[in-house]
Amino acid sequence: MTLTHFDAAGHAHMVDVSDKPVTARIAVARGAVRMSAATLAMITEGRAKKGDVLAVARLAGIMAAKKTADLIPLCHPLPITKVALELVPDPDLPGVVVEATVKTGGQTGVEMEALTAVSVACLTIYDMVKAVEKSMQIEGIRLILKDGGKSGRFEADT
Amino acid sequence: MTLTHFDAAGHAHMVDVSDKPVTARIAVARGAVRMSAATLAMITEGRAKKGDVLAVARLAGIMAAKKTADLIPLCHPLPITKVALELVPDPDLPGVVVEATVKTGGQTGVEMEALTAVSVACLTIYDMVKAVEKSMQIEGIRLILKDGGKSGRFEADT
Amino acid sequence: MTLTHFDAAGHAHMVDVSDKPVTARIAVARGAVRMSAATLAMITEGRAKKGDVLAVARLAGIMAAKKTADLIPLCHPLPITKVALELVPDPDLPGVVVEATVKTGGQTGVEMEALTAVSVACLTIYDMVKAVEKSMQIEGIRLILKDGGKSGRFEADT
Amino acid sequence: MTLTHFDAAGHAHMVDVSDKPVTARIAVARGAVRMSAATLAMITEGRAKKGDVLAVARLAGIMAAKKTADLIPLCHPLPITKVALELVPDPDLPGVVVEATVKTGGQTGVEMEALTAVSVACLTIYDMVKAVEKSMQIEGIRLILKDGGKSGRFEADT
Amino acid sequence: MTLTHFDAAGHAHMVDVSDKPVTARIAVARGAVRMSAATLAMITEGRAKKGDVLAVARLAGIMAAKKTADLIPLCHPLPITKVALELVPDPDLPGVVVEATVKTGGQTGVEMEALTAVSVACLTIYDMVKAVEKSMQIEGIRLILKDGGKSGRFEADT
Amino acid sequence: MTLTHFDAAGHAHMVDVSDKPVTARIAVARGAVRMSAATLAMITEGRAKKGDVLAVARLAGIMAAKKTADLIPLCHPLPITKVALELVPDPDLPGVVVEATVKTGGQTGVEMEALTAVSVACLTIYDMVKAVEKSMQIEGIRLILKDGGKSGRFEADT
Repeated sequence: MTLTHFDAAGHAHMVDVSDKPVTARIAVARGAVRMSAATLAMITEGRAKKGDVLAVARLAGIMAAKKTADLIPLCHPLPITKVALELVPDPDLPGVVVEATVKTGGQTGVEMEALTAVSVACLTIYDMVKAVEKSMQIEGIRLILKDGGKSGRFEADT
Repeated sequence: MTLTHFDAAGHAHMVDVSDKPVTARIAVARGAVRMSAATLAMITEGRAKKGDVLAVARLAGIMAAKKTADLIPLCHPLPITKVALELVPDPDLPGVVVEATVKTGGQTGVEMEALTAVSVACLTIYDMVKAVEKSMQIEGIRLILKDGGKSGRFEADT
Repeated sequence: MTLTHFDAAGHAHMVDVSDKPVTARIAVARGAVRMSAATLAMITEGRAKKGDVLAVARLAGIMAAKKTADLIPLCHPLPITKVALELVPDPDLPGVVVEATVKTGGQTGVEMEALTAVSVACLTIYDMVKAVEKSMQIEGIRLILKDGGKSGRFEADT
Repeated sequence: MTLTHFDAAGHAHMVDVSDKPVTARIAVARGAVRMSAATLAMITEGRAKKGDVLAVARLAGIMAAKKTADLIPLCHPLPITKVALELVPDPDLPGVVVEATVKTGGQTGVEMEALTAVSVACLTIYDMVKAVEKSMQIEGIRLILKDGGKSGRFEADT
Repeated sequence: MTLTHFDAAGHAHMVDVSDKPVTARIAVARGAVRMSAATLAMITEGRAKKGDVLAVARLAGIMAAKKTADLIPLCHPLPITKVALELVPDPDLPGVVVEATVKTGGQTGVEMEALTAVSVACLTIYDMVKAVEKSMQIEGIRLILKDGGKSGRFEADT
Repeated sequence: MTLTHFDAAGHAHMVDVSDKPVTARIAVARGAVRMSAATLAMITEGRAKKGDVLAVARLAGIMAAKKTADLIPLCHPLPITKVALELVPDPDLPGVVVEATVKTGGQTGVEMEALTAVSVACLTIYDMVKAVEKSMQIEGIRLILKDGGKSGRFEADT
């Protein structure tokens, strides 16, 4: 098996997808920011009055999905048709679980767009809370689901 | 304690750092991409001839550090003076450990730049190997060290 | 009636347009920079010899149309197929009237692209003349016409 | 009097500010989106539950301030040290009044950053509400205050 | 004959391509960085151990192709489907020859994408070696081949 | 001699300039687009009425200088304090000679900014005239002068 992002000489290239059909694509990715229970409480209790950390992170994730091809060197630019992020506080972690869903009609999948949205939403949470806790950790960023295209459907064992 | 990225009314803002002195700043962040041993072998064995995944990811991380203020909504733009990434295959994980060091002379720290560099380098590894293994996971992105500025030195318990 | 940019829980998202057909779209937007008659005279008289303010603003507007999805958080990226700006000095205002026409074949409209082009062209005029008059004002930025897509044709009462 | 953005031959250039001292700069700009009372009510009543239009617009304005030098061709890049936006519903307009305050320590002023923040926040409000009312209008974008630098203080007659 | 990037009044615009069919497009561009034989030897000999200048330049060229519409004011944004660069040391020049191939399915050609990829790859080589030789020169950037679209095939006399 | 953009292990990095003093820097770069005499005549004769190719290219060059650190992977971001481009038709070439001057106060030089400005201005000329002549060639992009910083003054033998 070989890595398709390199040619026969081992040189990186953006793979030729010219002959692939345009099909409906979806990808769902997930990750989390783990923090202390006290920090999580600050985020959840503050939402109404002191400032909505999760709303800022959600927006950062949506905008980052649109920058994926700018960030990931060999990614194809794609006309995204949907981005949505769910950010759910989880007291058992404790922390915030972030899930992104991205859709397109295109010649390649949107896995990287969904993973990038999750990553940047997590980084934004970190940024907004780091004055309170520097030891937070971003964890478990992974693909949950992808569908569409020749390689078909993938679902993670969760 | 309150979150400094919100004002008294709970509105997000980019914090005023006008009166903070320009000081030398450094931040080190770390993370990893966990994968199967077989996938890791493809990356490490292929480096000489089939294509250097880690070199592409390193460059993506360096370039992403320069885009941090574009990605993280409330981040101040900073004149970065150094970015370096180490990407080390770890057969015990198995996977690749990514560490980024960023420096600046500025009025705020470069924690977010280092964390962004690590995140995008990890995403790039994922992108380049995902045709082989979709169940890879990005893990443990965290701050290892920061120094400079009023809040002083932070070192993670590793 | 509800705002489509939020889901049932009140969270912002980029609306799913995956199932909308690709149709021909056009939007025309207009706005103006109001200034003193003396400032306007500097702009109009200087065009031949001292520097063409309107040509710089026109180009800024064209380039800004291409950045719309980068600036407006929930905007879909679209493959623009035409951008044109008219900048007409109006001695009665006095000031400069800016009109932008944008076209695409896409799943959503180009109203925001046209409005963004007008806004940035107006800002550029302001930038180039501000050393002479700081009290200029950008006014009346609005949609004049849109056509294409399910919601059909809209024409402003001018 | 001449326009400093053009040289003696009438060619556009980015003015040489190399010899200007770095001083503390501030600029405040203001503008508004005028809409029907019913549309304004949707925005104000929806904030708690249906989605916070003004929070999205505020963030868009903050991020746009950081892109000013990318949008305005002859603008110098500046290390912004503060951006804050106030968005206040005004039932008398009816509409939303947007005010941005930007600070830097630099060799040129931040007027364009403040005006760009206001413009993009207004465009974002338009985007989020346009499905409900297409005849909204962006109005009265102007400089309210600037201070710092050789040309000194400017205050608009409001 | 007239230049299509200007309208009848001599104003720059992004040409309306709305009615052009989407067709398969390809463009190949070439250029070179000329340097001393000693500098070229540093590049070629260092590849295995001291650092791969050409791999960095290749990646910069691929990423630049995706930024073409951002850089060239009147260029249409296009969904690139392939980018590949070959960088070949040529001891007779002496220097490095850079060739880029870009494909899309679109309404306009990808000549500018290919030429931009070559230019930025050459600039990157210059950047990485300039500490050793400042008198390097970028030369002969030109279109080698284009195909697709109404104007059909073009092949340079090489 | 070694290439400073690689570390001891041969890995690319953004060189640490933290300890370099901020000094006044200038760089001048030059290049040209060679074309047929007939094409050059179209450009020069059309300037007054049919559209000013050189004004568009000049603006593209200025804006590109500000994007240098985005394009060249290992380039440090720098606060540019001046960009000016001269574009001179040369009937002997025949073609257009482009020269860019860039200044900053910074810890590294602005050679890449000047070379990038020249390259993008040349590409823009090509873009605007390519419908008329596809065999144009971009030539002789090189550094003419640099001053400031530890390595001191460099002047090309012209």
